[in-house]
Amino acid sequence: MTLTGNMLIGQQAVTGSQQALRAIDPATDHPLEPAYPGATGAHVEQACALAWAAFDSYRETPLTVRAHFLETIADEIESLGDELIERAVAETGLPRPRILGERGRTCQQLRTFARVVRAGDWLGVRVDTALAQRQPLPRPDLRQRQVPLGPVAVFGASNFPLAFSVAGGDSASALAAGCPVIVKAHGAHPGTSELVGRAVADAVKKCGLPEGVFSLLFGAGNDVGIALVSDPRIKAVGFTGSRNGGIALCKAAQARPEPIPVFAEMSSINPVLLFPAALDARGEALAQGFVASLTQGAGQFCTNPGLVIARQGPGLERFIKTAAGLVERITAQTMLTPGIFNAYETGVGLLLEHANAQLTAAGLRGESPNQCQAHLFVTQAQDFLADAALQAEIFGAASLIVQCADDDETRQVIEHLEGQLTATLHLDDADLEHARALLPVLERKAGRLLVNGWPTGVEVSDAMVHGGPFPATSDSRTTSVGTAAILRFLRPVCYQDFPDSLLPAALKHGNPLQLRRLLDGQGEAQDNV
Amino acid sequence: MTLTGNMLIGQQAVTGSQQALRAIDPATDHPLEPAYPGATGAHVEQACALAWAAFDSYRETPLTVRAHFLETIADEIESLGDELIERAVAETGLPRPRILGERGRTCQQLRTFARVVRAGDWLGVRVDTALAQRQPLPRPDLRQRQVPLGPVAVFGASNFPLAFSVAGGDSASALAAGCPVIVKAHGAHPGTSELVGRAVADAVKKCGLPEGVFSLLFGAGNDVGIALVSDPRIKAVGFTGSRNGGIALCKAAQARPEPIPVFAEMSSINPVLLFPAALDARGEALAQGFVASLTQGAGQFCTNPGLVIARQGPGLERFIKTAAGLVERITAQTMLTPGIFNAYETGVGLLLEHANAQLTAAGLRGESPNQCQAHLFVTQAQDFLADAALQAEIFGAASLIVQCADDDETRQVIEHLEGQLTATLHLDDADLEHARALLPVLERKAGRLLVNGWPTGVEVSDAMVHGGPFPATSDSRTTSVGTAAILRFLRPVCYQDFPDSLLPAALKHGNPLQLRRLLDGQGEAQDNV
Repeated sequence: MTLTGNMLIGQQAVTGSQQALRAIDPATDHPLEPAYPGATGAHVEQACALAWAAFDSYRETPLTVRAHFLETIADEIESLGDELIERAVAETGLPRPRILGERGRTCQQLRTFARVVRAGDWLGVRVDTALAQRQPLPRPDLRQRQVPLGPVAVFGASNFPLAFSVAGGDSASALAAGCPVIVKAHGAHPGTSELVGRAVADAVKKCGLPEGVFSLLFGAGNDVGIALVSDPRIKAVGFTGSRNGGIALCKAAQARPEPIPVFAEMSSINPVLLFPAALDARGEALAQGFVASLTQGAGQFCTNPGLVIARQGPGLERFIKTAAGLVERITAQTMLTPGIFNAYETGVGLLLEHANAQLTAAGLRGESPNQCQAHLFVTQAQDFLADAALQAEIFGAASLIVQCADDDETRQVIEHLEGQLTATLHLDDADLEHARALLPVLERKAGRLLVNGWPTGVEVSDAMVHGGPFPATSDSRTTSVGTAAILRFLRPVCYQDFPDSLLPAALKHGNPLQLRRLLDGQGEAQDNV
Repeated sequence: MTLTGNMLIGQQAVTGSQQALRAIDPATDHPLEPAYPGATGAHVEQACALAWAAFDSYRETPLTVRAHFLETIADEIESLGDELIERAVAETGLPRPRILGERGRTCQQLRTFARVVRAGDWLGVRVDTALAQRQPLPRPDLRQRQVPLGPVAVFGASNFPLAFSVAGGDSASALAAGCPVIVKAHGAHPGTSELVGRAVADAVKKCGLPEGVFSLLFGAGNDVGIALVSDPRIKAVGFTGSRNGGIALCKAAQARPEPIPVFAEMSSINPVLLFPAALDARGEALAQGFVASLTQGAGQFCTNPGLVIARQGPGLERFIKTAAGLVERITAQTMLTPGIFNAYETGVGLLLEHANAQLTAAGLRGESPNQCQAHLFVTQAQDFLADAALQAEIFGAASLIVQCADDDETRQVIEHLEGQLTATLHLDDADLEHARALLPVLERKAGRLLVNGWPTGVEVSDAMVHGGPFPATSDSRTTSVGTAAILRFLRPVCYQDFPDSLLPAALKHGNPLQLRRLLDGQGEAQDNV
């Protein structure tokens, strides 16, 4: 298969005519062929028109058909074989084993959503049967199901070129919900995007679905993205990326005549709390775990531990000393793009110049372009509290250790934090009551709380939350990873006194889809089907 | 009990010091005692500080305690006795039986949410147990529950002085979720608000809850509301009222450093589709049902049928003739406020002057102030499609009948509609296929679809949806009536590898709260508790 530089507008391969973007191999700074010319307003319009035309039909596909479609996408991605792996490695600088693992995760994610679609719990069916004799007024027959919002615009992430890009979590959950998807490809990996986009389009064709279910657009600047979000036929947005990017999309979505929800996963420094007994008992092991989590993938994870909070003392000193020694031996790793590398250097530079942040250790410098040199800084709680700049995210392998004088300062530091994707507690039995006292604060701050683990690594499962209060996300009521991600793209509709023949299958009296339904406030017995 | 004109900041009765508002008896235009001076910025600040201080403790109250609190509010409201009824009648011009019924509904709503709190399904517990042996990586133990967002600002509606005001649906569902509530009282019924507010505050005290769980503020202009929505300790907003009011709150909430969700129920004209066979078979009965629904409570329902869509022909002519005859005999009814009456007169005036809207019937003129004269207009589909002004909501007993030449025009008219709370279909067997063809459009437009009923009358139950696409609400993914309203005020938190002793009760391994939990993708057997 040869890369063409084309977009996909439904089943049609279309060459853009606006400014082209081109991937850069960040390991060499060399541009990669082909060029990807950008979409015009007319291309955006065509993709939206196709998505809109597909919506009513796609959203009523039988659950088995939609599930099979998601599985077919996974099959098609796997059948891209080594070409996909090699291109993704070239475009991202990520090691081959990581890309192989990410492909597995991406396909697993699609198959998980296929299972979710089949099970149908996401239809959220609630039935209140009629009470004709009720006084003073009878109760009508009321039946609620969830329906999809409409076509969704998806903006892929740079740091997960497969798992959070063209056929990643946002696309998989939106398609599972019954929403057509238009992806604005991330400019850092257009070739990977083209290959995966073709896999999705092939799955659309093989499954006999309307072509507007999926389109893929390129664009060098912000114009294509803003045009997409502003189109009246787009009804929701999925985004993973920077705080500024997410906020810009939220503003565009709110400025529409009909505002729409934006599910943006943006910025998090993922505080790690080290409690005294744990530090005393295993400070060195904690340092090893911390440095491994911090520097994995050049620190380019949304859940990278960018902040450590602990009470000062010999345990913390040992932790810092061990961590510093490890960081100093960390080899520089290629970052995703020159832009990300420059932003990392700028962020680290600000801390290096900061009067109240001390550099504790730096990793080995890179020899090649765009290599992330790990950095570890230390500050004092009062200094951290005095300057919000100290909690700005530095995307990459940099972390700041905040030394607290006592439990009260620890609490103040946590209360001072912005919203986070994760918060981690390392504790031993003797720390339990300290930790318990801080849990209410942490629950207000983060979407996922971990004990004695590391935040990098996000399971795709029912209970996962990859979300959190602003600025971690734009809507703390949601998750962008895990099966609950499908709920973002749904809204409830109630059917009152419908004849059975007009009711959608999920709501019919006989429960032909055998769903777990809430029936008059109770779980519906499966044997009354 | 004597009305004092005081606000409630927690348990403290406080006299405002800003411009006072005073209720007006709309039946006489006479002002009612006492005056209600408005809150200062410092009052808003105090109420928010108390709410914030109460949050962590209130949100972890045992479910039985929180449920009992909601029931106690209902008891306290009932024990206000006739004083509440008389004051509400005087402030709203609504008839006594309606206010009595609304009190019943309000207390029933609180008791329904008490049941919801006890059952605990809203905690949405999902458990993925650890898979220590999984390859290539073990799965951690992951447990998700819903936690409340934080203190909620509630703006009551003018048209439901009890059921959607101080202790109405927004307050009941926010309190049920574990959120402290600060109510900005509606200026049209401050006395009713004070009485109900004292009932809530008494319930707080009787149940031994922290005082910040509830406060009640007055304010003559928009300042108090904007200050509330802008306070960083407020984490969500519930609103029922005008489109402009809702949009202003959304803008204020989005302009915060940390944007927050606004659940605004705003504007809907609730289209009613009359299908040909139904019109032919029972046009006169339909006209009777329609006029009764249109003129009930002077048309001051969010779900008032402000638009009728039907194919022209003898059936529709008979319907119009019968409806016109009925409207002409409708006695004028007192509207809620002089402001609402003036807005109604303005809206009707615009239609009277509109070149393409014909007045078909007008009700009897009122003798007293602020009386709503019912109006029925007719227009043609092409005219309706040509001017968006024809679908502006006129709050009150006015409706517009859109005559369509054929099924295609009917579809165009429906596609042209903005988002709605409800859409109603009147049909006979011979209409079923026509109706089926339009259902996908209607599902995209409205939160509740009714067959052979009337949209006024909103059941408080599990399956109800009182919501819909913009501008019906600001967030189509939610409902403001029914038990699912609680879900607006919650966000998920995931607990990873927590020791059982640190887990909240809802998530503990032994399921001590006996919740219906999702366990490894299946409903947890209740007997493994």
